[in-house]
Amino acid sequence: MTSKIVPVILAGGQGARLWPISRATRPKQFIKLMGNQSLFQQSLERLKGAARYEAPIVLTNAEYRFVVAEQAQETGVALGAILLEPVARNTAVAIASAAYFALEQDENALLHILASDHAITADDLYFGTVDTAAAAARDGWLVTFGIVPTSPETGYGYIAVGDSLPNGVSKIGRFVEKPDLAKAEAFLAEGGYVWNSGMFMVAARTFIAECETLALATAEAARRAVELAKSDLDFVRLDSAAFERAPSISVDYAIFEKTSKAAVLPVSFAWSDLGSWDAVWAAHRPDAFGNVVIGSALLSNTTNAMVMTNSAHVMVDGLDDIAVIASEDAIFVGRLSQAQRVGDLVKALKANPATQALTETHQTSYRPWGGYSTVLMADRFQVKRLFVKPGKKLSLQKHFHRSEHWVVVKGTAEVTIDGQVSVLSENQSIYLPLGCTHRLTNPGKIELQLIEVQTGSYLGEDDIVRTEDDFGRIG
Amino acid sequence: MTSKIVPVILAGGQGARLWPISRATRPKQFIKLMGNQSLFQQSLERLKGAARYEAPIVLTNAEYRFVVAEQAQETGVALGAILLEPVARNTAVAIASAAYFALEQDENALLHILASDHAITADDLYFGTVDTAAAAARDGWLVTFGIVPTSPETGYGYIAVGDSLPNGVSKIGRFVEKPDLAKAEAFLAEGGYVWNSGMFMVAARTFIAECETLALATAEAARRAVELAKSDLDFVRLDSAAFERAPSISVDYAIFEKTSKAAVLPVSFAWSDLGSWDAVWAAHRPDAFGNVVIGSALLSNTTNAMVMTNSAHVMVDGLDDIAVIASEDAIFVGRLSQAQRVGDLVKALKANPATQALTETHQTSYRPWGGYSTVLMADRFQVKRLFVKPGKKLSLQKHFHRSEHWVVVKGTAEVTIDGQVSVLSENQSIYLPLGCTHRLTNPGKIELQLIEVQTGSYLGEDDIVRTEDDFGRIG
Repeated sequence: MTSKIVPVILAGGQGARLWPISRATRPKQFIKLMGNQSLFQQSLERLKGAARYEAPIVLTNAEYRFVVAEQAQETGVALGAILLEPVARNTAVAIASAAYFALEQDENALLHILASDHAITADDLYFGTVDTAAAAARDGWLVTFGIVPTSPETGYGYIAVGDSLPNGVSKIGRFVEKPDLAKAEAFLAEGGYVWNSGMFMVAARTFIAECETLALATAEAARRAVELAKSDLDFVRLDSAAFERAPSISVDYAIFEKTSKAAVLPVSFAWSDLGSWDAVWAAHRPDAFGNVVIGSALLSNTTNAMVMTNSAHVMVDGLDDIAVIASEDAIFVGRLSQAQRVGDLVKALKANPATQALTETHQTSYRPWGGYSTVLMADRFQVKRLFVKPGKKLSLQKHFHRSEHWVVVKGTAEVTIDGQVSVLSENQSIYLPLGCTHRLTNPGKIELQLIEVQTGSYLGEDDIVRTEDDFGRIG
Repeated sequence: MTSKIVPVILAGGQGARLWPISRATRPKQFIKLMGNQSLFQQSLERLKGAARYEAPIVLTNAEYRFVVAEQAQETGVALGAILLEPVARNTAVAIASAAYFALEQDENALLHILASDHAITADDLYFGTVDTAAAAARDGWLVTFGIVPTSPETGYGYIAVGDSLPNGVSKIGRFVEKPDLAKAEAFLAEGGYVWNSGMFMVAARTFIAECETLALATAEAARRAVELAKSDLDFVRLDSAAFERAPSISVDYAIFEKTSKAAVLPVSFAWSDLGSWDAVWAAHRPDAFGNVVIGSALLSNTTNAMVMTNSAHVMVDGLDDIAVIASEDAIFVGRLSQAQRVGDLVKALKANPATQALTETHQTSYRPWGGYSTVLMADRFQVKRLFVKPGKKLSLQKHFHRSEHWVVVKGTAEVTIDGQVSVLSENQSIYLPLGCTHRLTNPGKIELQLIEVQTGSYLGEDDIVRTEDDFGRIG
């Protein structure tokens, strides 16, 4: 029997180049950039209804685990596992860990290694290439998907396509670092070069064998991290002591550039890495004036513009080749054709303590029970909006430096204060004195929303002592 | 004895050309555009310590009366009177009303008619021109201040300077509508033309006499509006029935372009009408790259930029000749050199019900007792931050469609609900059920701040029935 394919989705990236919409706490893959689902959700949707696939393995980190679980649930795609990387160590050890994990279930497992933040049109052409790659992987090839260039891109690595092999794949001629424009134009004119997409199809066993030969430290770290992994609710926590021993190296450098089993499959389906705002612009269908607008905006005498806004209304007048990207707390304005520079610019923000937070946090934080957004921050008080999913319960907790008022504005809340339980419906409020032990539950069938007014001398999220938690967050 | 000069400050304008910072509810003159005082306050500061001035008369409308009073108080400049125009009828009847009003106090009154939203460097040169104009006005001339051009501006009306008169002023050759660029360049090269600044110096008696001769309907409307005016706290409400009869016409058209007593005083002090973002930019000192930044922003590879932001951090990269103006709910991005177009663009916003509010309201509303800002609006609830000045009391009021929760986050509140009085200190809260009659007072010596959570099916500001009010707003 032919084994099915296990999708391995890499969902731990931080996506600084789509600042200010993409932040460390809410990176690109979890944002609705190309429609009404996030890119991660669209990655899951592409797996639906295809008999070729097993339930996917998602690789991410502890910070993103709840958003992964929640967004997956919204799509209805059941995940095989969510593997949590204890630290960021690039793709080699992450993929090797997934390979060891998959081998435990099926020694013939094929892995389709996928990004969670790319745009792909999943048509017959696409699935045809998946099947071609799978056949070649079964024959022992480590297949990389190479996108046939449609423009002289300087933002991608290239692969020179070598001799043809059976099963429609080709030998790899060589890997080429991101070229300058002249080189990229030559590659495009000449043909025989493809973009390195970061998508792969491999047999787990072959991959591991090559990894053990070519990158032993990576292989050992991954093997031990999986052996010693702990299950935590729906998550598999890779062992951190073992995982941290891995070198930080990409799977391209560690394996694909070294192994004699590497092959490339040139593909022509619609693909974008959405690596910068001009790529997001190109992946949409610009209107007759070359404009793409996401959110509320009015453009006049403006051409070749990418406008995205989370809340404020944007007016753009008399400009060409312009990106205007607005989140609640930060705005980027620059040449669309130079939008690759955002990544470097964000480094400058990060280096400055006054603006560092702009690179990290987002207005809304998602938690396993729901989430919250800060609507007002002041010196000695702040106001938050909390939403709690039906049936969910926050941890039993207390604060040393703040007291809180809760006003229920939607749904029903069950509030326990120092052991005493109250049920509040819409329009009722309750006071949580400093130092009290309290817990919030949504006992209802609809979402609970409440306004929290905190007052105190210190209002940081770390003033919290948890004594019980449904989500394993004690202390 | 020589009469002192009565400054007449026009503070009723709506300033749409500095959108999105300037809004109908908080126009340009009340905003800190050129330092840490508003333009209106800077207009008042220019009157300080000059023995030549009486207490000023401020012309404004009912909507702006409290912000006028509060901002004046902050400067420490005592106002002679705040005249409230019942409707907007342009400058002729407004100034005529001020002239009749001033004549009641002093039949020899000289009026220095001033905008509240211009930038002026009040140096010796400036005050020298004030005294020259005053001397000419005492001799019976209606003096207009003409700014000697420094660039071929197309946004101003021009005046051709005629024959010299005694006292340093000149006859007016003719008034010239806003010229095209070629004409403006010719005026600049040729000399003998000045910009019509909208600043005047006149004897009230002479002005009224000319007004009665040349614009009788205006004069009659103004005279009756003052005769029937009602004092309302610190304000003088011009009679609306009388005032409304006035034609809507500027003082230039009604008087200065017709009278034989008009004179012009060419002046060279530093002046700007701040009529658009490029004018605001020019009135500041751009840095070595030609950039002006107000608020939190980072500019890279950018030249000739005007950036102003109320809260969000702005990053601008690789642009020249660019305006980026961000309020909490709207963002304008366009060529700085084309920023005069904002006024027309705002008309498009106004015509669209979905964006109309962006042209009018502002996040913070000022009231005689303090003010409030909306921090969160949702379908069936909203959250406001209220601040109440020490000793101030809101109206006794009730709402038919909403209940409210108040959480005191700073200071002390005295809350009366259906006759029962409670005193709340920081961190205490109270519930105001739908339909209750309630009143909020700050009995303390420091500002009171509270968070108000409103819930209900209708949350408009007009769901309010006032039964008592310290500020005369009953019903």
